[in-house]
Amino acid sequence: MKNNSILPVKILSTGIYLPGAPVLSSELEKKHNKEPGWTDRHSGVRQRYWAGFGDTCTSMAVRALQNALDSAGLKYDDLDLVVSASASYDHPIPHNACLIQECFPSERNIPGFDIDATCLGLIVALDVCSKLLDGRRYSRIAIVCSEIASMHLNPDDWETYSLLGDGAFACILGEADTAGQGLIHGDMKTYAHASRYNIVGIGGNAYPFHLHPLDENRYFRMDGKKLLKLAYETVGPFFNSFFSSLPFGLDDVRWIIPHQASLPGLLLAEKILQLEEEKMIVNIREYGNTLSCSAGLALHQAIEDGRIRRGDRMMIVGTGAGFSIGGTLWQY
Amino acid sequence: MKNNSILPVKILSTGIYLPGAPVLSSELEKKHNKEPGWTDRHSGVRQRYWAGFGDTCTSMAVRALQNALDSAGLKYDDLDLVVSASASYDHPIPHNACLIQECFPSERNIPGFDIDATCLGLIVALDVCSKLLDGRRYSRIAIVCSEIASMHLNPDDWETYSLLGDGAFACILGEADTAGQGLIHGDMKTYAHASRYNIVGIGGNAYPFHLHPLDENRYFRMDGKKLLKLAYETVGPFFNSFFSSLPFGLDDVRWIIPHQASLPGLLLAEKILQLEEEKMIVNIREYGNTLSCSAGLALHQAIEDGRIRRGDRMMIVGTGAGFSIGGTLWQY
Repeated sequence: MKNNSILPVKILSTGIYLPGAPVLSSELEKKHNKEPGWTDRHSGVRQRYWAGFGDTCTSMAVRALQNALDSAGLKYDDLDLVVSASASYDHPIPHNACLIQECFPSERNIPGFDIDATCLGLIVALDVCSKLLDGRRYSRIAIVCSEIASMHLNPDDWETYSLLGDGAFACILGEADTAGQGLIHGDMKTYAHASRYNIVGIGGNAYPFHLHPLDENRYFRMDGKKLLKLAYETVGPFFNSFFSSLPFGLDDVRWIIPHQASLPGLLLAEKILQLEEEKMIVNIREYGNTLSCSAGLALHQAIEDGRIRRGDRMMIVGTGAGFSIGGTLWQY
Repeated sequence: MKNNSILPVKILSTGIYLPGAPVLSSELEKKHNKEPGWTDRHSGVRQRYWAGFGDTCTSMAVRALQNALDSAGLKYDDLDLVVSASASYDHPIPHNACLIQECFPSERNIPGFDIDATCLGLIVALDVCSKLLDGRRYSRIAIVCSEIASMHLNPDDWETYSLLGDGAFACILGEADTAGQGLIHGDMKTYAHASRYNIVGIGGNAYPFHLHPLDENRYFRMDGKKLLKLAYETVGPFFNSFFSSLPFGLDDVRWIIPHQASLPGLLLAEKILQLEEEKMIVNIREYGNTLSCSAGLALHQAIEDGRIRRGDRMMIVGTGAGFSIGGTLWQY
């Protein structure tokens, strides 16, 4: 293995939270006079969860984190660091992590900060936090992804309106307890010429909302065709480069847990990488694309239903606004 | 030294960008019918820079990064990672880093992501990136902080209006080339009960701007008295804890480069820590508080004017929204 050594990190537990009841594509199609079945055929999304009154990024994050803590038999005070890795936020200032931490009263003054890589937030945070986890300063790190995408959806842009969903995911990282367990390899590439293929135009300093409050640039906009083309060109080379430094290949990876970008995107990746269908954990039909949270929901589900077992090699991988491709390879 | 080993990282260079011409406190006082000299007496700010037409977080970040690259004799393509560590942003989606990277055409597909810890962004990014810099995957990392605080200022809230400024800072990290050079120690503590002492209320999911575009909660709000009280209680213990794991004390640190929170805050810290005045780099009079950027501006200035020299021990430290205290100690 060139230049690589396994970082001895264990994903101790995962937790999720989904707001409200599922919103069915069939209901949305009826409400908006769309052809029945359009959504299933185009994005593959049959239902998604949308945050309702009282749900915030913080409230959902807190429930997912509590779920992950319960699952690991830990308390908040057992953590040494809280990293929020979402694209959504409750307030422009402060960052998300401290708002989550505010809901867990503690005397320990555990540090917290945010990582933002839009849809790749979880993957970047897993990569970064595995480096930070040294068993001294940081022995247990929580990563939380909580997304309210529905706030930014344009009902007249059916492609994104029917694709995106809300939800929260958390995981706790700790020290490995088995030889070989941990983060085997991570990589990321950014194709910045495509940084505006996914955009929420209004709401930052480039396009202040108080000057343009109802401008349609406040909606999430996605150039799906260009993104699919770029993914087509870059996914293969990314995987080739990723495994070039490893003594084994993609065939020796048991599970692929992708960011659930879109069903066409997932099928394209399956084809390019010549993956057996059952190897890739796909749940976009039930949750839609929940940005940084989506690979986490898939990971949680596959651990819960017994597919992913301790010792399995698994790769959490995806594309996101940036345009970036990133992946982390684990022995779980 | 308990549990500590120096991370062999060198701050190769720094760069800054300040928009437009300085805005003098005397001019602002005249324009807003304030008592002449009020600002100097209360916040110590004599002038600050405010972004104007055409300045964005991205455009300012790009100039600071180019400045740092030039200073190191490097090209963008020599980088392995770009981390944007600002509280400000141009668009809610995507994150800042890729928008900065878009302005440096490259075939290398250098990865990039954001870290957000509000005013502690630079300090957290220095800490995290020093761990990432391993001379294999990452040999050179750029950190960029670019802040447009002026966009969120309420002219009727003179305390913040006269305090905050805009600017950008960048630095390039590389491998140490001298024994002992590098990051000696880092620490951070978050007092999350105080997470709302600094807030921009509107513009996220908790308080959507399209429902409240002109609500005054869109302005930056700061509870200066509570912050000063909390700083008073926490700064001493933070430094005690920080140095308890080191074989030397604060007296053996040549330079303190603080986040320029406010002049009363800086003077309070000087008193609590019993610092000689010349040891602390203070530039709030010329730039105001520029959020994540402010310690960077002070660092750049003190390197440029020859105060900080290679081999000097220096501590970059500050408080920020969270409420957090963080610091990194370097042999420069």
